[in-house]
Amino acid sequence: MVKIGIVGGTGYTGVELLRLLTRHPDVVISAITSRGDAGTRVDAMFPSLRGFVNLAFEDPSTADLGACDLVFFATPNGVAMRQVPELLAAGVKVIDLAADFRLKDVASWEKWYGMPHAAPELVAEAVYGLPEIFREQIKTARLVANPGCYPTAVQLGLMPLVRERLVDLSHLIADAKSGVSGAGRKAETHILFSEAADNFKAYGVPGHRHLPEIRQGLEGLAGQSVGLTFVPHLTPMIRGIHATIYARIEVDTDFQGLYERVYSDEPFVDVLPPLSYPETRSVRSANVCRVAIHRPQGGNTLVILSVIDNLVKGAAGQAVQNMNLMFGLEETTGLCRPPLLP
Amino acid sequence: MVKIGIVGGTGYTGVELLRLLTRHPDVVISAITSRGDAGTRVDAMFPSLRGFVNLAFEDPSTADLGACDLVFFATPNGVAMRQVPELLAAGVKVIDLAADFRLKDVASWEKWYGMPHAAPELVAEAVYGLPEIFREQIKTARLVANPGCYPTAVQLGLMPLVRERLVDLSHLIADAKSGVSGAGRKAETHILFSEAADNFKAYGVPGHRHLPEIRQGLEGLAGQSVGLTFVPHLTPMIRGIHATIYARIEVDTDFQGLYERVYSDEPFVDVLPPLSYPETRSVRSANVCRVAIHRPQGGNTLVILSVIDNLVKGAAGQAVQNMNLMFGLEETTGLCRPPLLP
Amino acid sequence: MVKIGIVGGTGYTGVELLRLLTRHPDVVISAITSRGDAGTRVDAMFPSLRGFVNLAFEDPSTADLGACDLVFFATPNGVAMRQVPELLAAGVKVIDLAADFRLKDVASWEKWYGMPHAAPELVAEAVYGLPEIFREQIKTARLVANPGCYPTAVQLGLMPLVRERLVDLSHLIADAKSGVSGAGRKAETHILFSEAADNFKAYGVPGHRHLPEIRQGLEGLAGQSVGLTFVPHLTPMIRGIHATIYARIEVDTDFQGLYERVYSDEPFVDVLPPLSYPETRSVRSANVCRVAIHRPQGGNTLVILSVIDNLVKGAAGQAVQNMNLMFGLEETTGLCRPPLLP
Amino acid sequence: MVKIGIVGGTGYTGVELLRLLTRHPDVVISAITSRGDAGTRVDAMFPSLRGFVNLAFEDPSTADLGACDLVFFATPNGVAMRQVPELLAAGVKVIDLAADFRLKDVASWEKWYGMPHAAPELVAEAVYGLPEIFREQIKTARLVANPGCYPTAVQLGLMPLVRERLVDLSHLIADAKSGVSGAGRKAETHILFSEAADNFKAYGVPGHRHLPEIRQGLEGLAGQSVGLTFVPHLTPMIRGIHATIYARIEVDTDFQGLYERVYSDEPFVDVLPPLSYPETRSVRSANVCRVAIHRPQGGNTLVILSVIDNLVKGAAGQAVQNMNLMFGLEETTGLCRPPLLP
Repeated sequence: MVKIGIVGGTGYTGVELLRLLTRHPDVVISAITSRGDAGTRVDAMFPSLRGFVNLAFEDPSTADLGACDLVFFATPNGVAMRQVPELLAAGVKVIDLAADFRLKDVASWEKWYGMPHAAPELVAEAVYGLPEIFREQIKTARLVANPGCYPTAVQLGLMPLVRERLVDLSHLIADAKSGVSGAGRKAETHILFSEAADNFKAYGVPGHRHLPEIRQGLEGLAGQSVGLTFVPHLTPMIRGIHATIYARIEVDTDFQGLYERVYSDEPFVDVLPPLSYPETRSVRSANVCRVAIHRPQGGNTLVILSVIDNLVKGAAGQAVQNMNLMFGLEETTGLCRPPLLP
Repeated sequence: MVKIGIVGGTGYTGVELLRLLTRHPDVVISAITSRGDAGTRVDAMFPSLRGFVNLAFEDPSTADLGACDLVFFATPNGVAMRQVPELLAAGVKVIDLAADFRLKDVASWEKWYGMPHAAPELVAEAVYGLPEIFREQIKTARLVANPGCYPTAVQLGLMPLVRERLVDLSHLIADAKSGVSGAGRKAETHILFSEAADNFKAYGVPGHRHLPEIRQGLEGLAGQSVGLTFVPHLTPMIRGIHATIYARIEVDTDFQGLYERVYSDEPFVDVLPPLSYPETRSVRSANVCRVAIHRPQGGNTLVILSVIDNLVKGAAGQAVQNMNLMFGLEETTGLCRPPLLP
Repeated sequence: MVKIGIVGGTGYTGVELLRLLTRHPDVVISAITSRGDAGTRVDAMFPSLRGFVNLAFEDPSTADLGACDLVFFATPNGVAMRQVPELLAAGVKVIDLAADFRLKDVASWEKWYGMPHAAPELVAEAVYGLPEIFREQIKTARLVANPGCYPTAVQLGLMPLVRERLVDLSHLIADAKSGVSGAGRKAETHILFSEAADNFKAYGVPGHRHLPEIRQGLEGLAGQSVGLTFVPHLTPMIRGIHATIYARIEVDTDFQGLYERVYSDEPFVDVLPPLSYPETRSVRSANVCRVAIHRPQGGNTLVILSVIDNLVKGAAGQAVQNMNLMFGLEETTGLCRPPLLP
Repeated sequence: MVKIGIVGGTGYTGVELLRLLTRHPDVVISAITSRGDAGTRVDAMFPSLRGFVNLAFEDPSTADLGACDLVFFATPNGVAMRQVPELLAAGVKVIDLAADFRLKDVASWEKWYGMPHAAPELVAEAVYGLPEIFREQIKTARLVANPGCYPTAVQLGLMPLVRERLVDLSHLIADAKSGVSGAGRKAETHILFSEAADNFKAYGVPGHRHLPEIRQGLEGLAGQSVGLTFVPHLTPMIRGIHATIYARIEVDTDFQGLYERVYSDEPFVDVLPPLSYPETRSVRSANVCRVAIHRPQGGNTLVILSVIDNLVKGAAGQAVQNMNLMFGLEETTGLCRPPLLP
């Protein structure tokens, strides 16, 4: 049994980790921390977990995380980087669901996240936890940087095209729509029900933090620089990301066949038949990315539709998938349940 | 392995049965029928089931239901009663998720459902599938009438009070609110998104079909006639029923303690601590009823709050629970996963 | 032209006042204040008002409210009572949309609102601004306490029955459901989109602040004490209150006829035909209360359905109605536009 | 007073026309027809109109439309074209809110709409009712083809760029998101609440009927052929369209200044300040298009955000605006009310 610690368990990625891990046959959750809610029973805050989690939130300062085999950080950006060095030194593996170790360029990270990096020496070692690209490295990693939700949807949507350099890499467009849970469980006015319901808006157009993360991933695949316009939107649903990706064809091929071939062995990427429309609800609660490829009017613009549940394949589910890889478990353990529909 | 047939698999209770049964370790689904969609792959209609269900809908006339151990009817009212006799004669057990066998009074059934009953001789034999009341009878039943969604929430909310006759049984009030999936997957104008979203309304006040079903259940518990005002409402959410029940105290007692005692051994009824508010999302996707007991200002009116997921404990989950009982399986098999929150 | 000031214009009742008043032919808005957002243009915070409001929020300390004819307080509870005496002394009339002057019993107010009252001497003078009951007093009032949203829906729903004492006044039940905007525009976790969407829950069962307000109103109508169980619920919609009211008949009569008679001259109360279901969306954006009367199965329990838009007839619209009365304007001025549907 | 007839008043554009016209000072509605609901009072079907509309739906065969000054067709595609010739001959002006007269190329219309055109001789005469482009022609038109909702949002978003040919016209991208009311008030499964809520999906990628309409409009502005990839999406809100438009710069300029200049005299196009995000709710219920111009990272891709209420500026409001122009009324009459927020 893998002994698990969770730092920052009161947000949506934290409670989603708990939902997934409580039914995982090979793990035991030994500690969960929260600075603000230490002492509160987990199932008092999240009654959905009554009967499944028999723990209280502990103060980070007293929790014995060093005795864990693996610690998940489900914290705001900037927390993990201050605690990870000590944990690694104690032989504990770490998966950070925040962004601290996602960008390889420390200067870029510091610019986009607006703070100095507390553990720059670990950035190179950290493995970017997108198993469809970095599976082998993840298996032996001590420190995994779990990808962002938008970056997961966009990179999986573009990977076959970019790796083969079949499209104009200087002018990619990713128009992405997210459910409101992607903004986290923070008391902020703009994500109140009465502000976000029956409404739709773009945000972050001048530059969203997921832009450099996506670009880094695509450039790694392409082996060259990539131009990407990325526009995220807030849509009135709880879970789900829908990325609509536009790319101009430079090398013609059977794109449907290409995607089916590239993802044929992937347990968590589902290439839909031609002319399909992946709905976000078709992945709700599940660790899967569904992708469809369109070529309107047979023209030279490809339209790729890619959907995930931002809290699962876009966060906690992918983290569990990474954990399975890191500990030599079957990659799909604990992650094979049908999505919830309707 | 229990061989399962599902009649009428294209509605919400049908697809929910599939979601639950595909991960049940002791069953195999051998046939699923649909008159209108015969030939269509199940996962073409419900992409959420891709990789989980490898079947196509069959025409009811050609499906070999007689070879099943158990057939679920997830059909409109009036279908099961015409097919059940032949199945029972062939040694097949049946769980009807519709209303055909719920009311013991055939004349009353014919009045409320507006048609003659096609199998009145089976009505007496049918067991009402609320395990918290009829567990022993369900274990040996050939034919189970799976309860309605409102009746499940209201009966579980009232059972301890009514069985002990602690409240005024002539003036019970159940003010119930349902998510829109309770109305089924039918192309009707009033449940369109643009009609039902951002809106709230009552319906069925002069008499909803679930009223005689609830009253029959309560009268069975009380051993006397019961007066009930039942007002259902449509609320803009997909899943969930919230019943707010008002009862005037006649015999004082420790009501919280009573509920905790009555339900202490029930795997799927959760009595919340005093002063709690069960939210419908706390049971989303799960086969559980959560109940809270309030006594405002210490007065003589009790307020019972009872929530279920109408498609799970109010339909498909309860049907699986009944199946487990009928086939000597552990009652909770396949039904222990945390609810989906948020 | 009536010169208007608005204190606390950044909440939902504030912006709703602006929406209504900008098209009112007889008023001019001369000042709007906000402690936290002084200096911000109103239409920068609420782009829906671009082209309609050419003002910036002013700091309360510098705004010249004494030069107004009327000041609306759209502030949290406890603010108006500290500023009203000075305004009244300066000859300014006041409508308080918060609760400071709603309860005639100061001790009760202090208990329910958890603070000492700063202007107890004005409580007796304040007129409760429900025009359907206190129209004449409002016309000459200096200080109007605008009713709460739940109290408006429940009192209008019950008034004919209670004034005539036709029902059991010791056991009234009001089961009320509110859209989330009723909780205000405050950054609180429980009203986040991802918490409140696709969810339904009760709250405040042991005692909501609107309970004494409703009871005071009903007791004034009945001339005797009244027993009321009031249970509010949060429903996933932006606007709207639906009160489902249960009352046991003591004196039989033609209840439909009674309601039609009582409200026949009321411009903003609409008694629906028998067997109707008022939907909250049928009053969305409009200053109207729609009421339907049901008597299920001809029994002795009446079910009254009453709906309002909590921000209009439950707040800002009613305030404008009161303003019209206080200044001798036609009562319906600025308030006659069809609701927004869908 | 302009005498108005409405054909097909039971859909969302029909009821929205009624909402707007009932408060219009210069019109009187003399007839409203519905084949299926003849005899039903309008306010029985739409209780929001109680007190505002005192009419019943008439059968189209008996309604005296020839006595009207103007007839609006709020019918499915293919209805208006069969009735318009007779009305025009009788001296009645017509605004068709459906698509019958939008495309100038009859062969293209017949291909996209899948039926022969019944009045091809009127296609050339019909004026495309986008006042920001065709104001002068509308003033003297007998027959106005009211634009589609997506075409309104996209054309107003692109007009300044396309007319000046500042961007690559061969590779425009319009990623558009619509509320569900855009699909009409039809009993279809995919727009049920339980299907469309908490969900997001694309549709019509191979070719949506609004594509040739948009392309025709843009080509008219540019005086050359235009390449456009148009992807519509369904988003879980009632009203609103958000178009996110991508265009590659070919001629650099002050784009913000350009848009402000082009639309400076337009009463119903609002260019937001730099770095703004137009929300769909900021135009809810109002006849306005809000536009924002972004240039991420100062690169060579422009991102234009354009929002409308699909039922107002995208349908009924624009129709009233056209009516005002056709009858010499002030263009803004009846259309100047603040949007409903929240």
